[in-house]
Amino acid sequence: MIVLAVDCMGGDHGPRVILPACRQFLDRHADARVLLVGQPEALGAFRHERASVVAASEVVGMDDAIEVALRKKKDSSTRVAIQQVKDGTAQVAVSAGNTGALMAIARYLLKTLDGIDRPAIATQIPNARGGATTVLDLGANVDCTAEHLLQFAVMGSALVSVLNNDPQPTVGLLNVGAEAIKGSDEIKRAGELLRAAAATGDLNFLGNVEGNDIFKGTADIVVCDGFVGNVALKTIEGLATMIGGFMKEEFSRNLLTKASALLAYPVLSALKRRMDHRRYNGAALLGLRGLVFKSHGSADALAFEQAMARAYDAARNQLLERVQGRIAHALPLLHPRAAGAGV
Amino acid sequence: MIVLAVDCMGGDHGPRVILPACRQFLDRHADARVLLVGQPEALGAFRHERASVVAASEVVGMDDAIEVALRKKKDSSTRVAIQQVKDGTAQVAVSAGNTGALMAIARYLLKTLDGIDRPAIATQIPNARGGATTVLDLGANVDCTAEHLLQFAVMGSALVSVLNNDPQPTVGLLNVGAEAIKGSDEIKRAGELLRAAAATGDLNFLGNVEGNDIFKGTADIVVCDGFVGNVALKTIEGLATMIGGFMKEEFSRNLLTKASALLAYPVLSALKRRMDHRRYNGAALLGLRGLVFKSHGSADALAFEQAMARAYDAARNQLLERVQGRIAHALPLLHPRAAGAGV
Repeated sequence: MIVLAVDCMGGDHGPRVILPACRQFLDRHADARVLLVGQPEALGAFRHERASVVAASEVVGMDDAIEVALRKKKDSSTRVAIQQVKDGTAQVAVSAGNTGALMAIARYLLKTLDGIDRPAIATQIPNARGGATTVLDLGANVDCTAEHLLQFAVMGSALVSVLNNDPQPTVGLLNVGAEAIKGSDEIKRAGELLRAAAATGDLNFLGNVEGNDIFKGTADIVVCDGFVGNVALKTIEGLATMIGGFMKEEFSRNLLTKASALLAYPVLSALKRRMDHRRYNGAALLGLRGLVFKSHGSADALAFEQAMARAYDAARNQLLERVQGRIAHALPLLHPRAAGAGV
Repeated sequence: MIVLAVDCMGGDHGPRVILPACRQFLDRHADARVLLVGQPEALGAFRHERASVVAASEVVGMDDAIEVALRKKKDSSTRVAIQQVKDGTAQVAVSAGNTGALMAIARYLLKTLDGIDRPAIATQIPNARGGATTVLDLGANVDCTAEHLLQFAVMGSALVSVLNNDPQPTVGLLNVGAEAIKGSDEIKRAGELLRAAAATGDLNFLGNVEGNDIFKGTADIVVCDGFVGNVALKTIEGLATMIGGFMKEEFSRNLLTKASALLAYPVLSALKRRMDHRRYNGAALLGLRGLVFKSHGSADALAFEQAMARAYDAARNQLLERVQGRIAHALPLLHPRAAGAGV
């Protein structure tokens, strides 16, 4: 039985979207239980034999400062959900709440794994090969050293080896050119560390990749600092939204274009399905001593259910143990001195 | 009369694409002259009363190292084209060649303006408002200080005030959130410098913007370091290519979908026009003591002609003098000590 602790109050829509998602998820996963974390009065109407309410009196707002979420709201649904993972009551927590607060609370309660300085956020972006490229970090860390990028690469490899059932997924370092001499000093140093990790068999490192390679699917995993990752992700969202808007405008321009939209309906809906980012909802917070998944704040029920399914897969396939195992193996590279002292 | 020096050998296609672009451009601009720079045997067949050949015996390859382009190939078409600007024979140079080499040669021959440490590459990206957002830097500088970002903001403002005939275009600082407390230390410091420049009237600074704001058209100018700008631009190209590929695939799936593509043809071609990046070809190299424009390496004749038209507009509207004027005005902010010593 896999137990998920779900922050039912988080995100733009809260229980209105999250409860229907939980019901769908439970109906499709017979060996799962859900702990509905939140204000009982908001969750009381929900009945399912494999669901129970865990009371939390407070809610972290989408605009709350991290300090407020961490120090003031000690009985928030986000915190109580993660506490379930810490206590072993649940194997994984899922939240659509404030990303900064979620990361801070998760880090405070669960702590990072040995060898990991900073947790990272990893998400999947659909690519032209029909699969998805896993990109990390996506906003948890704005200033990264070469060592952090190596840690991200190792954690991302563990995640993708679980998700895709591929023991040696390929890793690319996001850069401004394919040649090893490109990029800032820190990026060049990261390239050296990644090549060293490839030499010891800890990574399947391809070399530098560029922004367009995310969509080409050149590498299974693309590693970057959180600033660059966040800008890339939001740029992607912005362009997709604009193109969607253009299509709507052009097809609704007049009677003729409306008629052509009707005739093109099967094609347009196939296109919509292929580009539906909801299918890829559910980012993993990696590097913690416990599993936490983040849903997009604006997720609808289908998207939130997807994030739950991803969290469930991760727990079922022992993502945590596999990340720990990979990191332990790569520890001499991650922290040369710490590993030397430990032996 | 505006004289353009055109590097006819640069880019993926060379004279085969560039010569037809020059003819079109000359036909549409009666007060322009073109210096066709390149190997005479490759250009000899071209005849136009307002065009003449300037011989250059060498060609910078798209993969040539900057060192090779700068030190070895002293008679390259790229270098000779920029030399025309330095000598005053032409007001502006246009090249589709190797970006790194072009920037290095331009910087070496023309030198930077007072107050500018590093030139920047600025391009326009179409936005949902029907206009374009000017983004800089796009790859010339991978490690930027707050002062560099301020210089980019001042230069970008001068460019857009010329292109859009708007004396106070708005500037946004690309960041991971709208709040001033977001981002790395360097970005926060850049925010302070930009606010100071707004207070003295040197900039119309809006504050932080995010990746999706490029497409929303929130600010006329978006400032970022070259690493982030390059990743964002290539990510955009990658997504646009993937979506285009998806549409082609879905519409050519079977007879029915092919028929619907025929019926939707007016809509699809309107969409194609709106998203046609060729219309926005032509990036300005800013901060040099001379005007240089860069075309995309893969440009076709229409796209290259567009870059020439942009270069022509910049020369005609005295972009160089206006950038110089803006920078001179902002000099106390750009280099507090230098300005103090100069007064």
